[in-house]
Amino acid sequence: MGGCPFSSRRGFLGAAGSVLAASAFAERAVADGAGTAAPSAGNSAPRTVGGTSGNGAPIPFHGRHQAGIDTPQQTHVLFASFDLVAKRAEDVVRVLRDWTLAARRLAAGGALGNAGGDPTVPPPDSGDALGLGPRRLTLTFGFGPGLFEKDGKDRYGLKAKRPAALVDLPRFNGDQLDPAHTGGDLCIQACADDGAVAFHAIRELARMAAPNDAANGYGGKQAGVAAPYDAHQGAAVLRWIQAGFLPGGPSGETPRNLLGFKDGTENPGRPHPAARAGGKLAGNGTFEDVVWVGEEGPEWMQGGSYLVVRRIRIALQHWDNVALDFQEQVIGRRKLGGGPLTGGGEFAPLDLDATDKDGNLVIGDNAHVRLGAASSNGGARILRRSYSYNDGLAMIAERWPPWRQGLEYEAGLLFIAFQRDPRTGFIRIFENMAKLDLLNQFTTHVGSGIFACPRGIAKGEFVGKELFAA
Amino acid sequence: MGGCPFSSRRGFLGAAGSVLAASAFAERAVADGAGTAAPSAGNSAPRTVGGTSGNGAPIPFHGRHQAGIDTPQQTHVLFASFDLVAKRAEDVVRVLRDWTLAARRLAAGGALGNAGGDPTVPPPDSGDALGLGPRRLTLTFGFGPGLFEKDGKDRYGLKAKRPAALVDLPRFNGDQLDPAHTGGDLCIQACADDGAVAFHAIRELARMAAPNDAANGYGGKQAGVAAPYDAHQGAAVLRWIQAGFLPGGPSGETPRNLLGFKDGTENPGRPHPAARAGGKLAGNGTFEDVVWVGEEGPEWMQGGSYLVVRRIRIALQHWDNVALDFQEQVIGRRKLGGGPLTGGGEFAPLDLDATDKDGNLVIGDNAHVRLGAASSNGGARILRRSYSYNDGLAMIAERWPPWRQGLEYEAGLLFIAFQRDPRTGFIRIFENMAKLDLLNQFTTHVGSGIFACPRGIAKGEFVGKELFAA
Repeated sequence: MGGCPFSSRRGFLGAAGSVLAASAFAERAVADGAGTAAPSAGNSAPRTVGGTSGNGAPIPFHGRHQAGIDTPQQTHVLFASFDLVAKRAEDVVRVLRDWTLAARRLAAGGALGNAGGDPTVPPPDSGDALGLGPRRLTLTFGFGPGLFEKDGKDRYGLKAKRPAALVDLPRFNGDQLDPAHTGGDLCIQACADDGAVAFHAIRELARMAAPNDAANGYGGKQAGVAAPYDAHQGAAVLRWIQAGFLPGGPSGETPRNLLGFKDGTENPGRPHPAARAGGKLAGNGTFEDVVWVGEEGPEWMQGGSYLVVRRIRIALQHWDNVALDFQEQVIGRRKLGGGPLTGGGEFAPLDLDATDKDGNLVIGDNAHVRLGAASSNGGARILRRSYSYNDGLAMIAERWPPWRQGLEYEAGLLFIAFQRDPRTGFIRIFENMAKLDLLNQFTTHVGSGIFACPRGIAKGEFVGKELFAA
Repeated sequence: MGGCPFSSRRGFLGAAGSVLAASAFAERAVADGAGTAAPSAGNSAPRTVGGTSGNGAPIPFHGRHQAGIDTPQQTHVLFASFDLVAKRAEDVVRVLRDWTLAARRLAAGGALGNAGGDPTVPPPDSGDALGLGPRRLTLTFGFGPGLFEKDGKDRYGLKAKRPAALVDLPRFNGDQLDPAHTGGDLCIQACADDGAVAFHAIRELARMAAPNDAANGYGGKQAGVAAPYDAHQGAAVLRWIQAGFLPGGPSGETPRNLLGFKDGTENPGRPHPAARAGGKLAGNGTFEDVVWVGEEGPEWMQGGSYLVVRRIRIALQHWDNVALDFQEQVIGRRKLGGGPLTGGGEFAPLDLDATDKDGNLVIGDNAHVRLGAASSNGGARILRRSYSYNDGLAMIAERWPPWRQGLEYEAGLLFIAFQRDPRTGFIRIFENMAKLDLLNQFTTHVGSGIFACPRGIAKGEFVGKELFAA
């Protein structure tokens, strides 16, 4: 370790921030040997959802799409939202360049430097994920409305380039949004099969963009970073982060959320088309139809997607106290197998017209799956890629009967959805649900964000490149 | 599913709460087939620490010791602390009986009932961990001071039976304990290789002891529970919970904490004695010496242990900004390899007398490992079984230079230690450390608890049985 001279490791991002010096990164002691090979550029092979996840092999960082969208869902997420504090567009560019290079390295299972290197500067890597390997880490970058305009100011000259689809989310019925979990100018969705790997990645990326500490002088002194961003200004600071998890069930099975129901059955590409032969529905759509921005978007978004995140608290104690048949009526599906109340297995089509012997709809008017179904929303579909979260207990006053008040779980769903256009995706679907969904008596939306996730990149590019071109 | 008649599943714990009806538990759809076999009674084979962890096989629930202490550390914890609200000792007994039976079932990978069963009552199992199998789940029960005496009241006639070793922890220098993460009359440490499994177990056990919901009537109506505890009173309510994680590195390796340093190198039984041949230290002690209560304790504690939990926030942004050599001087070990500053690999003995060419101690007076070493504390040793935690961001004012204030990580270490006697264990060791440890400028103790974890049990017994005998 420490084989490269300290001097050569300084400034590894180069003065212009664009040159990756191979010697800049000391190798992580990767147990599975996956640490050194950089992924090949321009990988555009489609990733599959719901297939086997592989066993820890790195997820390619380069490609037509950013990883972490059509990647088979990992078991952990750390979602991070940032406020931009940079004064100049060039500092935003610089942080995006640095993040791109670092993310590629992290996704390959590498550390950002040698935890045992130059003793006179802060370690370039915090060391808490040493030896873990890539663990299928993906880092997905998104641009919030504040990059383009904030408080009426066009801070970076990008206002005219704001995509029409990157709307401000409307206020939905029942919203109780906490600013401490809402908004942000940039986001990074870090997903991995180990929560420690996801947290490490965010910690390192946040550190690269953070303001200098007056007493300790991070920027100028840290091995590997050429100079502080704009002196003590920094470029971006964390606004909120949220960890989430999924039960690590058999690969390819639909994971269950904290309601105990399967979540994501109707995602694009699920199940494999062959499994749906003879089904009444035309299918759950393709990623091209539902997820990826096409020629209707600006160049930097073509192959990208829009991310909507909602922190949804679930009144678990209340939910656990209601009868199974009521739970199933609320959702419109069976709890155990996941099939619709109208019969069949998990992937059987919903029969929204079926009635019982008394003429009542089997899947009720206000059932969650009816209100969320594409056929109830003019064909609108989204990709759900949500995680459960558990932040302990909090004093909570529920907003529905029996109006429980007290120390309850601060837990629920970190809902994450990707779509080609939020106006015809999440917003279209959720407007009705926010008013009518039976599930609302158990759920409260307490955090929110919307981000434009640019197309994937080839080697040598950085995330959002064309957006910043003159 | 649902093969047993609903009527036979009601009252599975029996009127006296002590009879396990085999038909009471519907089987979880366990993917790995481990769901049905109950572990054999009276297993007293020693478990090893730091060895291979097995691959998801159930950890035996019965034995001389409770599981979750000398069990090789799982990757996730959910630590739960409860306040007793039961008015009568018999209600405490009943919850301990019910918890014991349920815990055995959960540890074997079973669900607490059929998520697809009787539709007219709340599902006996919340269903969020269906199909996951045991994932090495352990449930370790502990009794806090409040079981014996609370606010000067001897609520359950147990005051005279309080063990001398179950002291109230003193106030330590620097403590900033938040009541929302401190204390408790009972605790359950749920550890598993999947955080969803640990959370599910706590959720189910908490539900069994919770007060009735006036509107939904959990107790009397839920399949499998005979009658509510003392009408609407309940027996125990959650006071605080804390999730934690470890990086899932290769089995047997010492995991790293969020400081990026290995944590637990000097635990009893580590490394295997053969690896220490020729070492200067006599060894790290045995579980018999360090962890298990012997004949000095009451019968119900013989083979048990005392648990001390501390929620320790770490100023990660501050730590990440200091030079590597300072980090290593603070700890007294190398960051990368974990060896002492006085040389050698991770398991090399500390040389606390070694000086450099200028005559200064190599491992400084106030280094973390010196202050924590057995030889600095009259031979005191503890078993560290800690986890990292990450609860997002919070507004924090640090208590050391440079007195950073702002939005920082609400993250750190959920320190969990087991010992034969806290007076000669954690308290002995930490009193000096709280005053002198260089690490204190990066850490703040913000939560705390002490619990007596009774001996393990044989089949048919319940946790703490002799304590409640007349």
